[in-house]
Order: sequence, then C-alpha cells, then structure tokens
Amino acid sequence: MKEYDVIVIGGSAAGIPAAITVRRHYPDKNVLIIRKEKQVSIPCGIPYIYGTVGSPDKNLIPDAVLEKNKIELMINEVNAINRQEKSIALNNGEIFFYKKLILATGSKPIVPSLSGVNLENVFSVKKDVDYLSGILNRLTKAKDLVIIGGGFIGVEFAEECNKNREINVTIVEMLPYCLNVAYDQDACEVAETQLKEQGIKVLTNERVVEIKGEQRVKSVKLESGKEIKADMVILGIGAQPNVDLAEKSGLDVDTFSGGIIVDKFMMTSDNNIFACGDCTCKSSFFTQKSPKLMLASIATTEARIAGANVFGLNRENPGTIGAFSTVLNNMAFAVAGLTEEVATELGYSIIKGEISGPNRHPGGMPGMMNLTVKLIFNKETKIIIGGQLFGAYNAGEMINVVSACIQSKMTAEQIALFQTATHPALTASPIAYHLVNAAEMAIKSTK
Amino acid sequence: MKEYDVIVIGGSAAGIPAAITVRRHYPDKNVLIIRKEKQVSIPCGIPYIYGTVGSPDKNLIPDAVLEKNKIELMINEVNAINRQEKSIALNNGEIFFYKKLILATGSKPIVPSLSGVNLENVFSVKKDVDYLSGILNRLTKAKDLVIIGGGFIGVEFAEECNKNREINVTIVEMLPYCLNVAYDQDACEVAETQLKEQGIKVLTNERVVEIKGEQRVKSVKLESGKEIKADMVILGIGAQPNVDLAEKSGLDVDTFSGGIIVDKFMMTSDNNIFACGDCTCKSSFFTQKSPKLMLASIATTEARIAGANVFGLNRENPGTIGAFSTVLNNMAFAVAGLTEEVATELGYSIIKGEISGPNRHPGGMPGMMNLTVKLIFNKETKIIIGGQLFGAYNAGEMINVVSACIQSKMTAEQIALFQTATHPALTASPIAYHLVNAAEMAIKSTK
Repeated sequence: MKEYDVIVIGGSAAGIPAAITVRRHYPDKNVLIIRKEKQVSIPCGIPYIYGTVGSPDKNLIPDAVLEKNKIELMINEVNAINRQEKSIALNNGEIFFYKKLILATGSKPIVPSLSGVNLENVFSVKKDVDYLSGILNRLTKAKDLVIIGGGFIGVEFAEECNKNREINVTIVEMLPYCLNVAYDQDACEVAETQLKEQGIKVLTNERVVEIKGEQRVKSVKLESGKEIKADMVILGIGAQPNVDLAEKSGLDVDTFSGGIIVDKFMMTSDNNIFACGDCTCKSSFFTQKSPKLMLASIATTEARIAGANVFGLNRENPGTIGAFSTVLNNMAFAVAGLTEEVATELGYSIIKGEISGPNRHPGGMPGMMNLTVKLIFNKETKIIIGGQLFGAYNAGEMINVVSACIQSKMTAEQIALFQTATHPALTASPIAYHLVNAAEMAIKSTK
Repeated sequence: MKEYDVIVIGGSAAGIPAAITVRRHYPDKNVLIIRKEKQVSIPCGIPYIYGTVGSPDKNLIPDAVLEKNKIELMINEVNAINRQEKSIALNNGEIFFYKKLILATGSKPIVPSLSGVNLENVFSVKKDVDYLSGILNRLTKAKDLVIIGGGFIGVEFAEECNKNREINVTIVEMLPYCLNVAYDQDACEVAETQLKEQGIKVLTNERVVEIKGEQRVKSVKLESGKEIKADMVILGIGAQPNVDLAEKSGLDVDTFSGGIIVDKFMMTSDNNIFACGDCTCKSSFFTQKSPKLMLASIATTEARIAGANVFGLNRENPGTIGAFSTVLNNMAFAVAGLTEEVATELGYSIIKGEISGPNRHPGGMPGMMNLTVKLIFNKETKIIIGGQLFGAYNAGEMINVVSACIQSKMTAEQIALFQTATHPALTASPIAYHLVNAAEMAIKSTK
C-alpha cells in the first residue's frame, strides 16, 4: 500500500504549479502527479505549433521542473476516487492512498452537435501531442481551411496556419466581431484589420449550420446560405470543464459552468479534495456572477491557492480578474478586468480615459510603435475595474501593471500619481506615459 | 498689467506636466509657461543623441503638447519674484502677475572643483540644445574619450559615443562598480560585462585628481597614479537643484539636498508658490531620509501633484519610490524602490526571492531572452519594498508592475497570487512568471 501526502491528478497549467506550491510551502511532504499524457503541450503555445514554433515537440512543458522540485510523476489514468478510503484507483487497478488530493483535470474542447462534425479533416483543439501532430500533417496538404469560431484560439490558429503556406484561411464567427467576448469593438476592429491584411477572410455575424462532405469535409454551410469550400476545418468554439472523475466521485459540480464547485480556498465539497484550473467553477473578482473564463494564467493562480491550502487554509481566492493578451500581425492586444462593454452590461456606471501615443521617446528610438490604452473606472468609487491595450508589445507587461492596479483596487487618483520607470529605449516618456494619462483623462471627464 | 491664473517657470519634465495638469483639473484657468530654452531636449534622451538618435534636434519635446492643452508659452528668463505683489519680472523688465506660481527650474550639472576642469573639450551634460550640439561636433573628431562618473548618464554616454566610431572610451568611477548607486552588485557586474563587451574600458575604485592639458585636455590623472590619454572628457557625476531664483525670493531651501523645501502638497514656504521636479527636495516613500534622486519620472509625478493642488489641496505626495531603467548592449536593467544593499544599509530586515528564466514560452518563440528578477520584502510585514530586474526588454514595463505593487504596499502573499496576462509571443509562461515566482521564493525562504 503506497500512500502520498498529496496526489495531484493532471499535469498541465494547474497540476504543475499546484504540486510545486505544495513542495514550496510544505517541504517535508511528498507529492505525486498522475497524468495521462506522456508529454504535455504548453496550452497557450498550441496555435504557434503551426507557424512560428514549427512542431508539437517544440511546445512542451519540460518535466525537468518536476524533478527540480522533487515531485514524483506517473503517466497513467485515474479511474476512480474512493473518498471514504482516501484512495485513487488507476485504470490498471493499482491503488494509491492520499492525505490530500488535488484535481487539475483541465478541460476538453466543445464539439458542436453539427451535421458533419465527424467527417475526416474536421479537428477540434485537443491538448494531445499526437492529435496536434495529426493536425500539422493534414495542414501541409490543405488548400482551404475554415476555422469555426473567432475567439483567441480561432484567430491565432488562422494567423499561424496562414504563415508560409499556400492556403485560403476563413474564420467564421457568430458575433459581430472576432474576439468580441474579450475586447471592446474598437480593439476588435483593429484586430480584424490585422487578420485581413494577412489575407485571412473573416466572416462575422455568421453561424455554421452544416459541415458537408462524404467521408472527408468538402465545404461549410452557413445560415445565411453561403457555402465555403473547405478541405480542412478547425473547431475553435471553446472548451468545457473536464469533470468526469469529479462527478463519478460525487463531488458537487456547478450546473451553469459545468465546473467543480470550490470555495475561496479552492476546496471542493470534500475537505480532503481541492481543485484548480479549467475543471473548476470560477468566482469573479467583480460580481457574484461566475465568469466562464478558462486561461492558463487563472489556472496557475488557482493552483497556487490550492497547493498552499492543502495542510492549512492560508490563501483565499480574491476572484478571477481575467487578464489576457494576444498578438496579431505583430500587434499586441491585451485586456484585464472588465471591458467597457461588459462593465456597462453588468450595470456599472463608468468613467473612462483613453490615450494613444508612442512606446518610445523620442520617436526615433528603435522599436517605436503606437500604443492605445483605455482604462475603465467605477464612476462612484473611482476604482479601476478594467483596461484594454493594443499596439506596441509593451502592452504585454503593461497589462500586468493594469492587473496589479485592479487587484489593489487603486483609484484613478492613485494611478494618476503612479511612479513609473521610463527609458527612451524601453517605454513612453514619463510625460506621456499611457496609464497615468489615461487615469488623468478619466478624472478630467468628471470636471 | 497682464495677470495669469498660473505661471509655470521652466518647461521640461516638470513644467510641462504641471501646466497640463492645471489645465486638466481647472479647465477655466489660464496658464503661462516661461522657459529660457528655445527648444527643450528630452532629458532622458540626451545620451542617445550621440548614437542611436543622431542629433539634438531629433530629441526635442514638441511644443504641440502645449498648444493642444491651450497653454501659453513665452521664451524668456525670469529675473525676480515679488511675492508680496505676486508678480514676476523678466530679464527685459516686463512684469506679469500670478495667482499661483509653479517653480520647475530643474537642475544643473555638478562641475567638480578639479584642476583642468575648464580646459577646452571638457564638457558637462547641460540640457541646452546648442551646448549638446557642441559635444556632438567635438565627438566626431575625438579619439580618446574619458567619461568621469559611471552612473546612468556616464554609462549611457559611453555606449552611445562608442557606437559606429573609431574611438577609445574609458569610464572612471569612484565606487566599486558602475551604477552601484542604483543597482545591487549582481546587476552591476552584468552591466559592466555589457560595457566591456563593446570595447569600453571601465576603471572602478578610481578617483580623478586632475584633468591635464594646455588649453585643450590631454589626459586625466587618477589618484592611483594612472594617467589616461584624453582629447575629450565628459563629466557625468550628477546634478544639483537649480534654486537660484527660489533663494533670491527667500523661499526655504534644504541644506542637505540643496532643493526647494516643499510639503506633501508640493507647496513651498509661500502658500501661492508650488515647486516640482529636480529643483525640489525629495521625501522618501520608505523612510524619513530625503533621497537625492533626480529623475524625469519623479518630476512628472510631482508636477501632477503640484498642478492639481494650485487651487485646492487635492493630491498628496506619497513620497518618492525611485523607479528607473536603462539599456546596455541590448540588455535592460531596471529597479524600483530599495535595492537589497540599500535596504540593508537602512536597517531593514529583509527576505528576498530571486528567479531567472525566459521571457517567452516556449523558448522557440521570437525575441526569447533571459530575465532575472529579485524582489525584496520587509521581513516583518512581508510588504514589498523593492525589485531589481535585468535581461529581456520585458523588464521595461515589468518594473512598473513592481512599482505598482510597492505603491499599493502589496505583500509577498498578494504578489504570489497576482493574476497575470501571459502570451507565448509576449511574456513568460504563467507557470514561470517571474514576479509571482520571486514572491513564492521569498515566502519559501521563511518556511
């Protein structure tokens, strides 16, 4: 009978930092990760396999990080949890006992119940190295690729698949804009221009009604009547929590999000079982409404909470802020917290400040590019609730300044007095620094 | 008799944002800037005139920003302030009345009382376009340049003057390392390696005792007895507040720093006169000791406080954090708050967390570079008091995340749970994100 202090089921963006956090906070406890994948794809890197990075084996999370933190690793599948006995059973019947269990079972792609969805050359985006290799093989022969869904996965796949290939790429998106769940219309319009400039076709306000073909896909039929030629289809319409094991074990699962219900300590309905990452139900930093966000960065934060709490409730989840970024056509797009549209939808009275200007000073410094920043504040409290950035790559870390401001509940006044490090080769001038001036513009709007 | 609501004396990194802030916060008030320079050099851009940017006229703060904000501009020199009458007199005898006055008179370079300091081809770094053009002219003919002082100005001048020129550049620094006032020894060592790799000679622990020559400089003599050939010398040993006008007007000036004494509202000893930027005495965010920091970014923050307070005390100076960055040999160096060495010197008991890792994920993404991060926390309160970063350009904005954390007095626990936006093309992976892991390492060190 083999017992571990902590067993983590799942070994990706949630499982790894959960295990590392246990080892950092409880250095005398032993930890076992059980995962079913021989190799783990970096989740956010998956689209880049098909262009910039070149192959699935160049997009792996190295197991060295586990060795370094003295975490045991087992490649296997867990079949059942015996909560009374505090044990888990592998597919091969082997049984391991745990003191504490962390579920980090992730998500699986949503496959719509469309006619033709099972045709050959129709792919979803599974985090499975062999499956992802299969997509790459097929892509080398594809002439007409249709991507269903213009969210992050959809647009990033479109751009990467379009790189250095003789291929027609079309995105079909239900909403009025690609990325409209994440960004306001102003940023979405710029993003679509970036896609179109690369020759990618973007069809918005369009719903797929059928994937047509015999054995192999031949076309995609839209509600508007249009039919798009396709010898390959990628489904990028989102993911759902993978809660098979949790449900089988009788843990509480949320009906709205489909995720495992956890409290602010990331504890499930069983005191000895914690959960983190895509498989859990989220709580919002802002409202009582649980956001349907699945991000590796959220998973790691939740993992650090779960891992630190297994032997003592030390950390509380402040709720999900939602901070994410992407790059299209060498232009960065980033958001943290609520967009203007979402904030208004949620009923907030807001004030906002907008600034556009260069990311270097003077403008002749190398790497000069424009950056547009919008900050959103609660009109009543003047506390920041969101920010949206697009343009220069500075956005990649500047959005984390915004996230820090949101997390600290800073007011427009505090951000206006924010003390920045600036340098000609790295940032805007201190006179023009975007965040400070956007805060000032929001304050000015109240004068 | 001409009267203005607000007159600002000085039109650089303090004067401009002070005037803009007045206009933003009091849109019905008129504002006049009086400055003596026809054109204003971007202060932090000055070293880049000599390499990357190419000439002083490509490093100017555009006056358009004043027009846009409906600020009047007058090029002239103020000779006296009549505080009873609330008026200022120009050199030509003209008189203007003010309701409120803002002094933003900046600083002037420290010229040591060394023998030979007035020889031809010995330059200090004056923020004067004609003078800076003179340096450029001379530089085209120089063969042996000695830079006295290895602070920011010194090392940036060294690198830029060395670019695309047949020239021997030597830095002479009194301290054990270049940049040692700003960074800990670990970063200084890396910075010096970057300088040396470009063929720049670095002499540390060396003090200049004489600048030798007849009419023109010929060599620089050191206390150690060494003598370095020089046909050009640049003095980069710092600056002192320019308080001539303030002293003449009987405003209180601090004897230690030499700066105009201001309260937390940036008000001088006269209720109708505010001051901001290099000409003022600083207060520290951390201690009661006034730091001798002169940075454009500090100037702009102080200007935004002064400008907002002229007709009502709305904003308080939280004290200077000190956040700055530079680039040497395409490697960024950035710091915010206290370094390990300074914190220890000030008597803090500290804990620290250090992390080194790539700025992209996977490593095959373009722009991949290493980034080393150290965070310093007060051991007792676990509140962050400083951070030092060097490596990838991400440091340029990431240091502003650190500054936001310091400004919000975040604890190591809060930073460990910091919600970041991450993306393969822009940042480290969320598992490896530097700030979060540095905070975790600091927490781990207490277990």
